[in-house]
Amino acid sequence: MRPQEIIAVKRDGRALSDEQISAFIDGVCSEEWADYQIAALVMAIFIRGLNRREQNAVTGAMLHSGKVLDFSDIDLPKADKHSTGGVGDKTSLIIAPLAAACGLAVPMISGRALGHTGGTLDKLESIPGFNVNLTEAQFRKVLRSCGFALAGQTAQIAPADKKLYALRDATATVPYIPLIVASIMSKNLAEGLDALVLDVKTGSGAFIQRYADSVKLARALCETGRTFGVNTQALITDMSQPLGMYVGNALEVYECLQILRGEEEPAMKPTRELSLELTAHMLVQAKVVGSISSARDKAHRALATGEALEKFRRNIKLQGGDASVCDKPETLFAKGLRKVPVIAASSGNLVTIDTFAVGRAISDIGGGRIRAEDGVDHAVGFACSVKLGDRIRKGDELGVIYCRKPSQADAISEKLRTAYRISGENPRPQQLIRATV
Amino acid sequence: MRPQEIIAVKRDGRALSDEQISAFIDGVCSEEWADYQIAALVMAIFIRGLNRREQNAVTGAMLHSGKVLDFSDIDLPKADKHSTGGVGDKTSLIIAPLAAACGLAVPMISGRALGHTGGTLDKLESIPGFNVNLTEAQFRKVLRSCGFALAGQTAQIAPADKKLYALRDATATVPYIPLIVASIMSKNLAEGLDALVLDVKTGSGAFIQRYADSVKLARALCETGRTFGVNTQALITDMSQPLGMYVGNALEVYECLQILRGEEEPAMKPTRELSLELTAHMLVQAKVVGSISSARDKAHRALATGEALEKFRRNIKLQGGDASVCDKPETLFAKGLRKVPVIAASSGNLVTIDTFAVGRAISDIGGGRIRAEDGVDHAVGFACSVKLGDRIRKGDELGVIYCRKPSQADAISEKLRTAYRISGENPRPQQLIRATV
Repeated sequence: MRPQEIIAVKRDGRALSDEQISAFIDGVCSEEWADYQIAALVMAIFIRGLNRREQNAVTGAMLHSGKVLDFSDIDLPKADKHSTGGVGDKTSLIIAPLAAACGLAVPMISGRALGHTGGTLDKLESIPGFNVNLTEAQFRKVLRSCGFALAGQTAQIAPADKKLYALRDATATVPYIPLIVASIMSKNLAEGLDALVLDVKTGSGAFIQRYADSVKLARALCETGRTFGVNTQALITDMSQPLGMYVGNALEVYECLQILRGEEEPAMKPTRELSLELTAHMLVQAKVVGSISSARDKAHRALATGEALEKFRRNIKLQGGDASVCDKPETLFAKGLRKVPVIAASSGNLVTIDTFAVGRAISDIGGGRIRAEDGVDHAVGFACSVKLGDRIRKGDELGVIYCRKPSQADAISEKLRTAYRISGENPRPQQLIRATV
Repeated sequence: MRPQEIIAVKRDGRALSDEQISAFIDGVCSEEWADYQIAALVMAIFIRGLNRREQNAVTGAMLHSGKVLDFSDIDLPKADKHSTGGVGDKTSLIIAPLAAACGLAVPMISGRALGHTGGTLDKLESIPGFNVNLTEAQFRKVLRSCGFALAGQTAQIAPADKKLYALRDATATVPYIPLIVASIMSKNLAEGLDALVLDVKTGSGAFIQRYADSVKLARALCETGRTFGVNTQALITDMSQPLGMYVGNALEVYECLQILRGEEEPAMKPTRELSLELTAHMLVQAKVVGSISSARDKAHRALATGEALEKFRRNIKLQGGDASVCDKPETLFAKGLRKVPVIAASSGNLVTIDTFAVGRAISDIGGGRIRAEDGVDHAVGFACSVKLGDRIRKGDELGVIYCRKPSQADAISEKLRTAYRISGENPRPQQLIRATV
């Protein structure tokens, strides 16, 4: 069947057969389909929709477009956590060692910063020497040695997803739930997992901002995971403000190490709380423990005893990094870094934060990537001094920009200030964990 | 505004502003928009639709993406005829000299064969030496000298259309009326016309096959033409069978010359009739005469007196061709051409012809192009021996394949035979001219 004929099916609002979906995904990988043909079908899919069967067929075809890893030789339950992305969302760096300390094997394949969101790989690379570009053999060895491994998506894992995502980004077809599900699940299902916990963000810093849509996404992700035989659970968590204290690569690693060391500041509490809760759900889904309450106890213990920190130390060494950061996290702050406060221009309650704008501002000065080919400055970032619901007085510090040159702070100060809306209204701060799906 | 933002407007079913449409068409021409972004927006347009204002804005932006010719220095009414394309549709070669003989200037910019349809430029190139690649200065000189000129679309005329059409062809987005209108009208409006007559084909060999859709297309074309200040009329004409006697480049030129010479065979009558009627409407629209009946008289006279043939002879010389074909049309038949009859396998009435299949079969043996980059064999073709409604007996000749090798006839005989449906039903042949819009 020619691409045009398959495109016409969805153009006219009909359902694609499994064979047509396979031909499409094969064509994406083999480059038999031109980019413009892929883009035309994706737009037709966006507007006309995919039913549940089609969504699963797209997910399956994308999954099998690449290699599906098999860790059945490792005699531990395999589990992972995946977040839909946010600002200051650094829990992976705590969850991976913490879950490993609780007896899971965590083969975590992560992404890079893009747009307003950060990426686990970039954060890890703030640690001197840390190598995220592992071969499959290296990945397997690290996983076996310390219970978790952290690496990027190789060309072998769901290659169709990489190509499709880039085209969707350029053609305004990203925010469609079945395609988001296929993208997320094709990568995660390739990890050969027993259990998967999804952190679906909702609010001003999430890709899907409306709560009702976040619920839909969470449900679709869980149903797809279960269809493919993986115990899947989703938490819907608040992204109406940056998570925890810091935004920015090295700063976020610092925050995680302080939590793993039991030395967190009060502003870091949400990061700690969410990491513990997601880990507990992983333990339940992977059937390591029978109830969420005993799972929470187990996770708390592994954090409090320092076992999680020791797992991370061991992992850093195995992945080529300088593990001394575990003892001296403050060495992560770059020399000569400037701290420029952002000051409130009026008094009132902090009622909303445009979290997307905060993430984007930090990306703009190099903390993330505007385009996929951009480089990242690991040192720069932002410290969040206030939280939604706080009473603010004119002149108070809303946050602190960490930068290398005053011009960087000048470029984003006003954007950051206006991202914080202060008014006489009574604030309605959201709970950190809004629902379990 | 970034392409993504403009794409998202139409993706979500909203109307595009004139500025957004201009930015899109500018982006197509400047290549600032990637092909996949163009394809995504075109698919969104196909599914979500364009309102009349948007359709006119797209037409205008495409028209002004290139050069708009100005023949105001020629002191004659300027008029053209454009057909939506069919099989055996060769009237341009009669209409251009005939209309010129009646006092019009006809600056005719034509196309090439593609898919199942022929193209005027390929037909003309059957005449030894005939040059369709004229510079604007040459085109103007030929037009001034003999009242009509025939050439291809240069890169200066509506360049956005060329790019868009190729992408639409590859992405199943051709059959959408507002885009067809913009494509047709942007080219024709660039000819600097006073009047335009459109031959909108309907039936099994037309791009738009359903009669109701043909009427919609005709109305949209006329309204757009009039909006841009050109007197525009459309005839909806039958394409449920090939027009006239021959399909194939040199064979069709032969048919036209025989008609211009007053020596046509009975099977050529529809070609003659349609050419006369379209020319008459051009004369009325260009206000050369006041009524359609006197316009018909004028056209008939110019054909009968041989004035139209003399115009064509003069044009062939001016465009570098061998005008002796006007005296010896039979020299157009290639030497050694084989004639292979297609024989009816059953008896009954000829109730339908799959005219698309007939055109496609001739393209398959080189009479047209399957892909735009293919070459054309001017010699090959098909003679239609029977017409819809004819009583057929098993063993009768349905038509004759003109080819260079027996293997060519073998390849398409069966396709042609089955394109002719013979049954006991009572046939309902259509009138040649079904409506005037």
